[in-house]
Amino acid sequence: MPLSGLEHRGVLFVLSSPSGAGKSTIARRLQASDPDIAVSVSVTTRPPRPGEVDGVDYHFVDVPRFKEMVANGELMEWAHVFDNRYGTPRAPVEKMLAEGRDVLFDIDWQGAQQLYQQAGGDVVRVFILPPSMAELGRRLRGRGTDDEAVIEGRMARAAAEISHWDGYDYVLINQDVDACFAQVKTILDAERLRRSRQTGLIGFVRRLMIKGG
Amino acid sequence: MPLSGLEHRGVLFVLSSPSGAGKSTIARRLQASDPDIAVSVSVTTRPPRPGEVDGVDYHFVDVPRFKEMVANGELMEWAHVFDNRYGTPRAPVEKMLAEGRDVLFDIDWQGAQQLYQQAGGDVVRVFILPPSMAELGRRLRGRGTDDEAVIEGRMARAAAEISHWDGYDYVLINQDVDACFAQVKTILDAERLRRSRQTGLIGFVRRLMIKGG
Repeated sequence: MPLSGLEHRGVLFVLSSPSGAGKSTIARRLQASDPDIAVSVSVTTRPPRPGEVDGVDYHFVDVPRFKEMVANGELMEWAHVFDNRYGTPRAPVEKMLAEGRDVLFDIDWQGAQQLYQQAGGDVVRVFILPPSMAELGRRLRGRGTDDEAVIEGRMARAAAEISHWDGYDYVLINQDVDACFAQVKTILDAERLRRSRQTGLIGFVRRLMIKGG
Repeated sequence: MPLSGLEHRGVLFVLSSPSGAGKSTIARRLQASDPDIAVSVSVTTRPPRPGEVDGVDYHFVDVPRFKEMVANGELMEWAHVFDNRYGTPRAPVEKMLAEGRDVLFDIDWQGAQQLYQQAGGDVVRVFILPPSMAELGRRLRGRGTDDEAVIEGRMARAAAEISHWDGYDYVLINQDVDACFAQVKTILDAERLRRSRQTGLIGFVRRLMIKGG
């Protein structure tokens, strides 16, 4: 709910969490809730998992193409995570912001730090914690797609990701997905109302004062 | 909606607007909506208006007592507005914050600036604009309590107050009081969720990591 009729600047909205904390569900619900929310699709060199669609879940590229994107400055942020590279293409983000839309980034703490630098600090960073590590383990096992060694690796990575919780503006605990989604939506709605993003306000106030003079 | 069960620090929540823009209605509704929202009652040297209750609308004091409060450091902020003095008593605010409650301040731009300094910047400042000066004039006349000269004076003061809109974190336009109230509530709910105010998070994350180790 931006101020009606006034020009505004879109929010760069980062959602981070360890795998299994519910971030993807919340991101999908956010996107479905409001056509003004666009999603940044990351580029990656890792192979697609079953069911993943190129251009929707990720843009899947090979290592030479990824390196070329880095060299050309085509990425707003990028990181090397274990054997894979991940990055955020710049052009679609700039296009979505120019349309006045908010852009949702499903990226990790390294990406969040770089995006913050790139955007001069004008980024809203939300971290989603699991209610407990035991619950996180249950959620990861519940997917039924990975063997125990993979899950152990994910748990270790989750702990490493969680250790960066204090680099975020908001930190939520996903005890209940409906409540957590409502909190994320509340944060986005409030951030849309910040004066600094209401670029039309200066003109509104000028007209107010002239007509009132 | 703070994070359930976690310790948090209350929000210092400033609402400013020119007289007639609907701030008092919204402040009353906020207070009624949530027992965790407390209201800072200002002290003033101006005489009570009909219907105003000492200790509820203001603490009414004489000039010597006001000067004594300033000298003793009993006020968090104070200002001289035309012939009257206004200030915010410190002790009740500190008590309400210690109880984990949010504190609502119905103060002007001078008060907002001083409170911001006193609180080291940890203040949420919301400014409410009228949809137009004509509408503001209608609302002021609609009260039926003041003669035209008083209303002209209020309109001039409204313009002066509005000129400080850019010193606020959020600026809203009160076209419709229900929509404006919902926006104010959204802002407060989101600000409660900021990491910096979730003082219990550090302990939560520590327990999460130990149990998950």
